[in-house]
Amino acid sequence: MAQRAQDHVDGPRLTASLAALARFGGREDGGVSRQTLTEIDLAARRHLVAQARALGCEVRIDDCANLFFRRPGREDLPPVLTGSHADTQPVGGKYDGAYGVLAGLEVIAALNAAGIETLRPIEVVSWTNEEGSRFGPGTMGSSAFAEPARLATYRESVDQAGIRFGDALDAALAASDDVTRVPMARPMAACVELHIEQGPVLEAAAVPLGVVTGIQAVRWFRVECAGTMAHAGTTPMAVRRDAMAVAVAIAQDLYALAPRAAAGSGDAGQPGAAELRLTLGQWTVAPNSVNTIPGKVTFTVDMRCLDDAMLDRAEAALRLACTRHAPATDVVVTRFFHRGPTYFPEAMLASVQRACERASEVAGRGAPVRLTSGAFHDAMYVADLCPTAMIFVPSKGGISHNAAEDTDAADLVLGARALAYTVAELACRQP
Amino acid sequence: MAQRAQDHVDGPRLTASLAALARFGGREDGGVSRQTLTEIDLAARRHLVAQARALGCEVRIDDCANLFFRRPGREDLPPVLTGSHADTQPVGGKYDGAYGVLAGLEVIAALNAAGIETLRPIEVVSWTNEEGSRFGPGTMGSSAFAEPARLATYRESVDQAGIRFGDALDAALAASDDVTRVPMARPMAACVELHIEQGPVLEAAAVPLGVVTGIQAVRWFRVECAGTMAHAGTTPMAVRRDAMAVAVAIAQDLYALAPRAAAGSGDAGQPGAAELRLTLGQWTVAPNSVNTIPGKVTFTVDMRCLDDAMLDRAEAALRLACTRHAPATDVVVTRFFHRGPTYFPEAMLASVQRACERASEVAGRGAPVRLTSGAFHDAMYVADLCPTAMIFVPSKGGISHNAAEDTDAADLVLGARALAYTVAELACRQP
Repeated sequence: MAQRAQDHVDGPRLTASLAALARFGGREDGGVSRQTLTEIDLAARRHLVAQARALGCEVRIDDCANLFFRRPGREDLPPVLTGSHADTQPVGGKYDGAYGVLAGLEVIAALNAAGIETLRPIEVVSWTNEEGSRFGPGTMGSSAFAEPARLATYRESVDQAGIRFGDALDAALAASDDVTRVPMARPMAACVELHIEQGPVLEAAAVPLGVVTGIQAVRWFRVECAGTMAHAGTTPMAVRRDAMAVAVAIAQDLYALAPRAAAGSGDAGQPGAAELRLTLGQWTVAPNSVNTIPGKVTFTVDMRCLDDAMLDRAEAALRLACTRHAPATDVVVTRFFHRGPTYFPEAMLASVQRACERASEVAGRGAPVRLTSGAFHDAMYVADLCPTAMIFVPSKGGISHNAAEDTDAADLVLGARALAYTVAELACRQP
Repeated sequence: MAQRAQDHVDGPRLTASLAALARFGGREDGGVSRQTLTEIDLAARRHLVAQARALGCEVRIDDCANLFFRRPGREDLPPVLTGSHADTQPVGGKYDGAYGVLAGLEVIAALNAAGIETLRPIEVVSWTNEEGSRFGPGTMGSSAFAEPARLATYRESVDQAGIRFGDALDAALAASDDVTRVPMARPMAACVELHIEQGPVLEAAAVPLGVVTGIQAVRWFRVECAGTMAHAGTTPMAVRRDAMAVAVAIAQDLYALAPRAAAGSGDAGQPGAAELRLTLGQWTVAPNSVNTIPGKVTFTVDMRCLDDAMLDRAEAALRLACTRHAPATDVVVTRFFHRGPTYFPEAMLASVQRACERASEVAGRGAPVRLTSGAFHDAMYVADLCPTAMIFVPSKGGISHNAAEDTDAADLVLGARALAYTVAELACRQP
């Protein structure tokens, strides 16, 4: 029955559905600009609602404007959830998020075409504001769904035009008054999210499907180095308090840490599965003048690893580097975000694995590999609520958050087939 | 006779003259904002012209709007030149430049009061655009005076409002049509520039006067590191092309060079006299986002040393560091400015030394020290034309280019006394 669902996935229909949504915010360079709750996003939402209704779904919405497209089951049990998000970065691609939502609707179309009735309802979700580029933080919809108390804080988030998220949300909800309101944190039987990898692992392994075993833990730090702004020509080296010299010394200690960590991890199954990933991405230098000694340098550290103990060690190393290279008063380290690792349960992985194996085999493609996600996804927060898993398809060149983001159409169809198998199997499983 | 000139310097008159000029562009925080050829600078020029005429000077101007206030000598020999500049940084202090011009006029007032007639004429100059903050580069007036061919290039320099330097210059010259035009690169007998130190050496030595032996050589480089912008979470360390990791490694190599250079130089007379000074002051990071691997990092290197051979070695070390840490195609080093060291002639130093010794002794203050200038000054270019020297007075806390720039009034008066002695002696010297 799961196989029958899988076989009824229609490639051309999925391709057409992806192209239709990509027109909302579509750019000449092939990218998509559809930030959350903008007029374009609201139009895309109306398009999705119409598409779901045409498939016979009931459309529902919650207090964070997450949209649920529900195909009833034989019994009113907690549903099987799939889906992703329809918002994009300021300049994003056609598939980041949109693919998971539309593949979910394709699964419903396939079940309809195959005449399959499931035990449990199936819901396809389109989460609000996964990207976090207009209103921070990201994954607002899914994290508020998992823990509704978060919504009050999120409502106060303000975009660059000074618009509150709460006001944008209320406008979106008011425009959806024909849609049934449902509570957040509703019981769900299970959740599977299909997404593009946004990294290079599957492409390098030359396989179309990946079973995502979990999502890396992440910690974000701000390192503020204070010095004394002074003339580059007149200030002897011995009396300088050069904020950049301190920042560079700390950064060098950190970079020295990361290759060592990588060398220490020996997971042959996935390149760098337990490696420490370090990014010093955002720098502010004051006064930022050729002939003035920097008086203040601030940089961010993004640390990720599937192993939280590795992040404990990396954080200790960061704090040690700061005290090694400057008096404590000159360097302030602030951890401004952290999230522990997500491990998807083995039973869910086994289910996804079977689905991916069959889809690959039928297509004569390489067997799926297991990998971890370096990026956040809505599934990360849904995993707090119910058994969850993810399926990845390759990203060409590992490129994402970019108009050049791309995935072969054949891979996109295979991903939807694996999703159909998994969702159908989960939706027929007895409680 | 030089002593008599020195003794006729009038402290209160100098202090009042400094306060009067500081009103042009004076700020509530005590700083001065008087960028070159602005309306405020033009008003300050008119004020200086009136002050000089009241002292009996003939006022003259050249093609770069450098103003010359001339006190005739007994014979029409090449004059002794003193002075500095009256323009400031966007937020500067009361003394950077202005002090040298007004102390020059005080010397003329002292000679008048003492009834001294000199063999040679004395000219007090106010150079145009020393700061270079509105129109780049700096020291335009003095460098064009020394080498008039430079002016054609300077005229094309454009400020942030899109105004050409050439147009601003022509307007200033048109407004000075009552002033005699004189050629640039005129023969000068000698030049002495009095300036605040803008560094911490004199304050640390607790002496009021410094004999400047020369000006450090300087080289400016732009180091452009190219990487590949990618997701901080999804991109394994092994496949990253992290532009910041490369930039930090190069920077660390450079910083390691500077303390070694300092340790190797053993000039007890002046702290760090032959040390290498390195400043990595200006950084641009793209896309400068917490969770994106930097795709491009550009930083500047300001290298200074009195010893040009040391700068040759430092430049070679910079280029080596770049090839060590990245493929040649990923790092581009551009030297975008350089100037060799300036050594003031010993005869001029001896003259300045005598003047500073007597001024200090009469005031019961510590004997002058010899030091080099880390900052550029107009004297650097005038030295290409005639025997030149400089006198420094202390800067509190070494602070300059800042509203907090300050020097004790007693030190300012001592500097003017030393200048009067030197100028009078040079102006009475037979050809």
